[in-house]
Amino acid sequence: MELQDLDHTIALFRRWIEDKNYLDLKQQLTQLPVQDIAEILNQLDARSSLLVFRLLPKEKAVEVFAYLSEKIRTAFSQMIAEDELKSLVQDLFFDDKIDFLEEMPANVVKKILQRTPESERKLINQFLNYPDDSAGSIMTIEFVDLREEMTVAEALEHIRYTGPDKETIYTCYVIDHERRLRGAISLKDLVLARPEAKIKDVMTRDVLAVKTHEDREIVAALFKKYDLLAMPVVDQEDRLVGIITIDDVVDVLEAEATEDFQRIGGISPTEESYFNQNVLILARNRLFWLLFLMVSATFTGRIIQHFEDVLQGMVILAAFIPMLMDTGGNAGSQSSTLIIRSLALGEIKPRDAWRVLLREAGVSLVVGSVLGCLNLLRLIALEKIRVDIALVVSITLVATIFLAKVIGGLLPLTAKKLRIDPALMASPLITTIVDALALIVYFNIASFLLRL
Amino acid sequence: MELQDLDHTIALFRRWIEDKNYLDLKQQLTQLPVQDIAEILNQLDARSSLLVFRLLPKEKAVEVFAYLSEKIRTAFSQMIAEDELKSLVQDLFFDDKIDFLEEMPANVVKKILQRTPESERKLINQFLNYPDDSAGSIMTIEFVDLREEMTVAEALEHIRYTGPDKETIYTCYVIDHERRLRGAISLKDLVLARPEAKIKDVMTRDVLAVKTHEDREIVAALFKKYDLLAMPVVDQEDRLVGIITIDDVVDVLEAEATEDFQRIGGISPTEESYFNQNVLILARNRLFWLLFLMVSATFTGRIIQHFEDVLQGMVILAAFIPMLMDTGGNAGSQSSTLIIRSLALGEIKPRDAWRVLLREAGVSLVVGSVLGCLNLLRLIALEKIRVDIALVVSITLVATIFLAKVIGGLLPLTAKKLRIDPALMASPLITTIVDALALIVYFNIASFLLRL
Repeated sequence: MELQDLDHTIALFRRWIEDKNYLDLKQQLTQLPVQDIAEILNQLDARSSLLVFRLLPKEKAVEVFAYLSEKIRTAFSQMIAEDELKSLVQDLFFDDKIDFLEEMPANVVKKILQRTPESERKLINQFLNYPDDSAGSIMTIEFVDLREEMTVAEALEHIRYTGPDKETIYTCYVIDHERRLRGAISLKDLVLARPEAKIKDVMTRDVLAVKTHEDREIVAALFKKYDLLAMPVVDQEDRLVGIITIDDVVDVLEAEATEDFQRIGGISPTEESYFNQNVLILARNRLFWLLFLMVSATFTGRIIQHFEDVLQGMVILAAFIPMLMDTGGNAGSQSSTLIIRSLALGEIKPRDAWRVLLREAGVSLVVGSVLGCLNLLRLIALEKIRVDIALVVSITLVATIFLAKVIGGLLPLTAKKLRIDPALMASPLITTIVDALALIVYFNIASFLLRL
Repeated sequence: MELQDLDHTIALFRRWIEDKNYLDLKQQLTQLPVQDIAEILNQLDARSSLLVFRLLPKEKAVEVFAYLSEKIRTAFSQMIAEDELKSLVQDLFFDDKIDFLEEMPANVVKKILQRTPESERKLINQFLNYPDDSAGSIMTIEFVDLREEMTVAEALEHIRYTGPDKETIYTCYVIDHERRLRGAISLKDLVLARPEAKIKDVMTRDVLAVKTHEDREIVAALFKKYDLLAMPVVDQEDRLVGIITIDDVVDVLEAEATEDFQRIGGISPTEESYFNQNVLILARNRLFWLLFLMVSATFTGRIIQHFEDVLQGMVILAAFIPMLMDTGGNAGSQSSTLIIRSLALGEIKPRDAWRVLLREAGVSLVVGSVLGCLNLLRLIALEKIRVDIALVVSITLVATIFLAKVIGGLLPLTAKKLRIDPALMASPLITTIVDALALIVYFNIASFLLRL
């Protein structure tokens, strides 16, 4: 099946709303998955969206709410009565609740939390304080906890009783009376075990757990490596405080890749989608790098000014500047992009710098000699350029490719070593550096070989 | 916890192998997860690797084998006896078996399959024929199938009996006597249901399924949207032939992102990791684009040649070429990278072209006017450049940013529309196009305003 295109359904919804045909609307709503309903609501105007939302049965409404965009949720929270909002938020899964509260302005949060029991309010505040990229910020508290002394049958009974409110029941965690993590058991193993066996005899004791402040990228890497569906999160005293599930990890992986794409494209990263940012925000996220690179490029211009005499003596040299700069930039981007991605996937580590250096040098010699020769032939045979000039251009080309690949390979590794995001060392920056070097090499070789 | 750094363990292993200290080696092996053992084996030389591998108990060996790199597996298959290899392959999960057979040369595959029963051989051949990027190529056949007439208790008994050999038991699929998919039920719902209930009364009938030839990117998008853990795959007659599980989807998402990174970096995509490719292969994957872009850049050179008179009349103009080209390239890359990623995430569709055009035009006006003004001030106040020349440069800058952003925004959308990979329309190509346009604008404005 194709990913459902909802345009047709959205058009139908618009018509039904206009015709006040709530019967068909309600009927259609019962047949759509909550994610599709949320996608439709996100695209309607706030008023229509709220109208449709109110036609949903309570339970489904809560689920849909978790998938709505920040924009629509903010609009809802301004349009509906305080009590309605409170009761809605009350029924959200804990991690969705935190997500929503994070979006809301402080006064709304305060109102919503007003009549929440002290204990939950404390917990919510604790969760709101976890840094954005930490394990704590993506965990949930709805998990099944078992005790070592339970039998398998008792454990299954416990799951039957508490399970419906849990985010996952596929991995259950075993804790002692101080809530310290003692072990874990998958529902698969529980179902496959003898009902009278003790939990402590069937559980796994070596459980991979992370601390609340651990970087979410590390968490995602652990999920990938060990094919996990869930992972426990513990506090400084090893007490179990939450779990992270695979669906949230998928989001983290996507978000981290997106961040790298943005950095490589020379944009300040944001988690907002393209159409959710207005023109001024889009512009702001791009201005810093463009400005920084523009100023850097003026140094490249200075180099040309410095060699103005050489250029004045032979203006034809200017015609090859774009080709040399572009090829250098591209050769450097290839290396840096490859290394940045390999670092993100954990395939390369900073200590591999020497191996990368050798490899990139090798590649640049192969690539450089092929391109250098072809370029020499082309300039002489097709463009009828003087042989000495063609030589200058081709030698510069080979040298530029070598410098570009070595710098493009090593800068991301250096950044990683210095705990700077390697993705910052991407095409835009590499291009600027390589351009300057290419020109210095070019004019020096030219003034030497052509005696200018 | 940190992602375990295995360097220390690898060093220990090397020492133990040298000292023939197999006792400590074996002891350590029992404590390591299979993924870590595989990572260690991948880094030892083939002979030591095989030695350690043979110390593993049979069951663990099979699991480790599934995680070994292609290089080590190929080495193993040449070093061990045919019978040992056969019995190893026999015990692999079906999808791992297919992965392994795909790596092996045809004659090895033939040998391994020689004494396989006819029915399984047919199935294997069918799986080997699924295209690389299809749902069929990532599915597995180890799933639990139930019948509508079973009770919940019978179903759980069935799972207990057949479960240990299945890849996942968290979603069970209900089929009729012709193996057509009738519904699905999660283990969670089974465990939570009354034991005497009939499966047909508790199962979900609306099951999202894909056909074997469906693109794996679509499959991944469905998993993400609906937070799935598994999804059934059916053939043309709607018969259930396999399931796809979330761990394989995580790999697909990573692979697709990597492919986009490589394309954006101007490299022909490959699924091999950096150090698994030798210098010649690395070079080959980069040559095509570099060559193509080098030739394209010569057109940019032609433009400069064409305007040689203008340049001869005012050589200082050459000094601003790098800044104009770089800023144009960067502005274009920002837009194209953002649009390419948004397309991959499904946040933007080709039909949004108009909205993208307006937004990029808006952004370019904001960014362009800020950069243009700053540049004008800088040239006049700091660099003491003649006002008319500074004006020419600044106007060109604004125009270039505008063109770059509009082209960078629209080309990926056009590619998607034409069913070409949008990631091909990334920085390298955009830069080349924008460079040429920037120069044409530059020299035309210059010759007009400066009357050259």
